[in-house]
Amino acid sequence: MTDRPTPRPAPARITTPSDREIRIERVFEAPRERVWRAMTDPKLVAQWWGRGNKVVVERMELERGGHWRFVEHGPDGVHGFEGRYREVAPPERIVSTFEWDGMPGYVAVNTMTLEELGGGRTKLVSTSLFHTPEERDGMLQSGMEIGVNESYAALDRVLARLG
Amino acid sequence: MTDRPTPRPAPARITTPSDREIRIERVFEAPRERVWRAMTDPKLVAQWWGRGNKVVVERMELERGGHWRFVEHGPDGVHGFEGRYREVAPPERIVSTFEWDGMPGYVAVNTMTLEELGGGRTKLVSTSLFHTPEERDGMLQSGMEIGVNESYAALDRVLARLG
Repeated sequence: MTDRPTPRPAPARITTPSDREIRIERVFEAPRERVWRAMTDPKLVAQWWGRGNKVVVERMELERGGHWRFVEHGPDGVHGFEGRYREVAPPERIVSTFEWDGMPGYVAVNTMTLEELGGGRTKLVSTSLFHTPEERDGMLQSGMEIGVNESYAALDRVLARLG
Repeated sequence: MTDRPTPRPAPARITTPSDREIRIERVFEAPRERVWRAMTDPKLVAQWWGRGNKVVVERMELERGGHWRFVEHGPDGVHGFEGRYREVAPPERIVSTFEWDGMPGYVAVNTMTLEELGGGRTKLVSTSLFHTPEERDGMLQSGMEIGVNESYAALDRVLARLG
């Protein structure tokens, strides 16, 4: 217990730049190299990606053409997610595809960038381009905003431990 | 040698219904069940998919959520292609994703239907929806029209042998 309040990051800012896109912006209280490490080391990814649920990183071949596959074990069952890396540019940019086993063949392209803000802070911008407006709307209506914020709160905790 | 000419099918009709789509229409001189078999039996697929080049069917899990991966060994090198089945409805419809290892993470969605025309003929319609107009244009400029017609000519030969 301490009188000093823990800095609490603002929630992710979620916008829709076009009818097939979702853009997420979030600031982390950690330097870019540390955020990159937490997002690319499979052992660390397993600690935040599932928002507290167990995550098995089955594949994470972090290079152009490599595949990834994460399996989340949650109270509502087991959910597999997978995709392929289109571009990996440490420590600032990853472009990859994303699909959920529950809707196989429905693929979004995620572009994630990390921008150094100075003062040990980093801005993440993640843009998802869906194949159709309907798929984008389905994602928006899936409760993703809560999930994204839970994941990033778990990532805050990983970053604090690494600090 | 015979005086009777072999029926020569008309070339594939390739159109662009929208700026992200390519539609292919082709009639085969075989009943639908036989065309379906040639398109779904891995041993038969290997005989026509590569237009005469050797094709190794590494994966072909023909069901919703299953993966496919074909590797073509041609004079210009080895090319891998892969994707996932979104929908499989024998003997008339397959929806699947398609990507080439040379452009990993650039995914098109292919919807293939077979329509019985009567008289032992079958019409194939294949529509590809690309993620962006640029990806669609890249495919159109890749020489795909020649490749498609060579594949379907090889498929004609497989169908004739099965008859």
